[in-house]
Amino acid sequence: MRIVKSFIEVSADSHFSFQNLPYGIFKPSESAAPRVGVAIGDLVLDLSVLVDNGFFNGPLLNHTTVFHQDALNAFMALGRSAWTEARSTLKRLLAVDVPDLRDNTTVRNAAFHPQSQCTMLLPVRIGDYTDFYASKEHATNVGIMFRGKENALMPNWTHLPVGYHGRASSVVVSGTNLHRPQGQTKADDEAAPSFTPCRQLDFELEMGAIIGTGNKLGQPITIQNAKEHIFGLVLLNDWSARDIQKWEYVPLGPFLAKNFGTTISAWVVTLDALEPFAVPAPTQDPTPLPYLRETGNNTYDINLSVAIKSKDMDAPQVVSNTNLKYMYWTLTQQLAHHTISGCNMNTGDLLGTGTISGPTEDSYGSMLELAWKGTKPVSIGKEERKFILDGDTVVIKGVCKGDGYNVGFGDNVGTILPIVPINFN
Amino acid sequence: MRIVKSFIEVSADSHFSFQNLPYGIFKPSESAAPRVGVAIGDLVLDLSVLVDNGFFNGPLLNHTTVFHQDALNAFMALGRSAWTEARSTLKRLLAVDVPDLRDNTTVRNAAFHPQSQCTMLLPVRIGDYTDFYASKEHATNVGIMFRGKENALMPNWTHLPVGYHGRASSVVVSGTNLHRPQGQTKADDEAAPSFTPCRQLDFELEMGAIIGTGNKLGQPITIQNAKEHIFGLVLLNDWSARDIQKWEYVPLGPFLAKNFGTTISAWVVTLDALEPFAVPAPTQDPTPLPYLRETGNNTYDINLSVAIKSKDMDAPQVVSNTNLKYMYWTLTQQLAHHTISGCNMNTGDLLGTGTISGPTEDSYGSMLELAWKGTKPVSIGKEERKFILDGDTVVIKGVCKGDGYNVGFGDNVGTILPIVPINFN
Repeated sequence: MRIVKSFIEVSADSHFSFQNLPYGIFKPSESAAPRVGVAIGDLVLDLSVLVDNGFFNGPLLNHTTVFHQDALNAFMALGRSAWTEARSTLKRLLAVDVPDLRDNTTVRNAAFHPQSQCTMLLPVRIGDYTDFYASKEHATNVGIMFRGKENALMPNWTHLPVGYHGRASSVVVSGTNLHRPQGQTKADDEAAPSFTPCRQLDFELEMGAIIGTGNKLGQPITIQNAKEHIFGLVLLNDWSARDIQKWEYVPLGPFLAKNFGTTISAWVVTLDALEPFAVPAPTQDPTPLPYLRETGNNTYDINLSVAIKSKDMDAPQVVSNTNLKYMYWTLTQQLAHHTISGCNMNTGDLLGTGTISGPTEDSYGSMLELAWKGTKPVSIGKEERKFILDGDTVVIKGVCKGDGYNVGFGDNVGTILPIVPINFN
Repeated sequence: MRIVKSFIEVSADSHFSFQNLPYGIFKPSESAAPRVGVAIGDLVLDLSVLVDNGFFNGPLLNHTTVFHQDALNAFMALGRSAWTEARSTLKRLLAVDVPDLRDNTTVRNAAFHPQSQCTMLLPVRIGDYTDFYASKEHATNVGIMFRGKENALMPNWTHLPVGYHGRASSVVVSGTNLHRPQGQTKADDEAAPSFTPCRQLDFELEMGAIIGTGNKLGQPITIQNAKEHIFGLVLLNDWSARDIQKWEYVPLGPFLAKNFGTTISAWVVTLDALEPFAVPAPTQDPTPLPYLRETGNNTYDINLSVAIKSKDMDAPQVVSNTNLKYMYWTLTQQLAHHTISGCNMNTGDLLGTGTISGPTEDSYGSMLELAWKGTKPVSIGKEERKFILDGDTVVIKGVCKGDGYNVGFGDNVGTILPIVPINFN
């Protein structure tokens, strides 16, 4: 295959190669209306400007209004054929040997903005947010800590992707700072709970699948069709208040421990861009029930890392390196399982993978595991951490390494601010 | 206080007295656009027609577009002062001694529709749906069945309203039939799970609070302000697949067992209409933490019932009578707790109470309890039930009994259809 390049220069270490072309929602200036953009190199390409100038001329997107909106939902709802048309249009327009956009200085000046000058917004209007628990290493680690080695994995774990419903309203875009939550906590040696700031604030390194097209209530998405319904992936930080969670979660699961904020990356990387990095999922034993059986390369080789920067540090220090490919249950299995009850998906729904931990101690996806319940503090620069402190910034990165290029997600960044004092009068 | 009557005749047993005036979304004919209506007697009053004819002339709702929409959200988002203005406008326009609407035959003919000829739609575009577990009787019953008398209530239960996030996409309006779900189930004596139709399908008698106005992320709604944020209540049936739930729910809570469908009533009864029926909540011991403390009449005396009709029966037979007032944690405590982490509410969010069981065996709010885990089948006509069978219709009613009038919710109705066979190819 002939390698086509873009007329836009992309440095070798950029996440946003010509092979990537992730979608996001941005404002080129404070007063501008939100619109759909695509990242390439250090730039954002404004798709609304391309439409306004007649550059989208395929059958589905000619004169479309979907790129003039404040969320990707309308575009995604058009379905896979429109996603394909958009990508091939962009691939053509950005190619080094196609003059249409390359040589049109007026449109180029209007359509390309430096990323550093753009404000990124939440890319998707999220209907429902679901979080899974699909990493065997993570579930085993947590199980060992809380129930001992013998009962680490619950009996259902190897038969189905355990999941639970999360809170959609508090999903925020990368760069949004969050206040430390408060709530009921109870130490083992206390008789009654107290109202306190969270003292065990954690991140969870996850990825999230964005549902492009849904299904009707009562009509499950089969595993064979699951990939067709997924538009793309984001990086996800499922912030967790471990001490609040410990007291509240029996018997109905995590609630306030998780709903004070969940951070997703500003850029949605499409499955089309990830396809060259598709790899087989881990072998599953026992073989799942037929509705969860799939063949082929059903997960992706995406290098993931977490770094922490305290307010006194100059740069974040990496505390974990892991990979999506370690995850036991695939994204398609998660989607097929989620709808097998008849549950309906809508465009814009978000499916988190759950914490992605790898096999080694430096590949765990949460502070709970990295510092092993506070018993092995983690070094960051001259400091050490058992959990996340006020002023700490957590940076998650995800990138696929191609031959001379990257397909990456940019950064998923969030800083924890002190509690907001509550006036009870 | 002078008793004002309406010029619309309302029978003594109607749920929709002049004192009620609940809001819903309806279509007067198949081809008509959805709009906001108010139930009175056997009629629906079309608020879009009233606006079009200049009958809403208060400062906030003059020429409003919020009644020409397919959900109550835009109206609710205007806030309590607009709710008050709408109610007082309607009270005046419908009063027997006010001629404006009464004597305007043209507008009356256009604005009133027989309920029997209207199609009711989901009243609210639901952002997030949360379900609580706030009835002490229900939590105790379930606890006894699954963990024995000694450990019936978990240690956290009397300290906080236990809740979990539910699935918003599958909330449907009364009258929507649902297919029996399928999924993984495992009997205690089986080594591995199987894929089966649900064999223990249940209802849960609940009420739901509709959030009228929300809060910003990080800024909790205090219990003193909680009532101001609640627009009104609905009847809610939280359909549950007990066998699926049993296998899947440890450790992260119910998931597929609940997300195949949740039915709410078509009419939202406002807190203003319920205020005459406000009563004190049960005494709470231990005294809750300060953020959950409240004084006054914080719950409502709402008579609730569940009836079942098999496909061979002529009329539903009541299997339970209970009351919202039995519920241990109030709606305002649920809302204050939900946001104490900083979690943000949006207009249209739904907070289910959890199953409302009373103190006696004929006041339990689920088949699980009424038939005590299948050991005491419940009679309905010539048949008996341990759980819900295909073709069964479940009818939930809720009504406040005033002096010569009712403030009621109408029916919450759903019929269970057979499974949809799934083609795995």
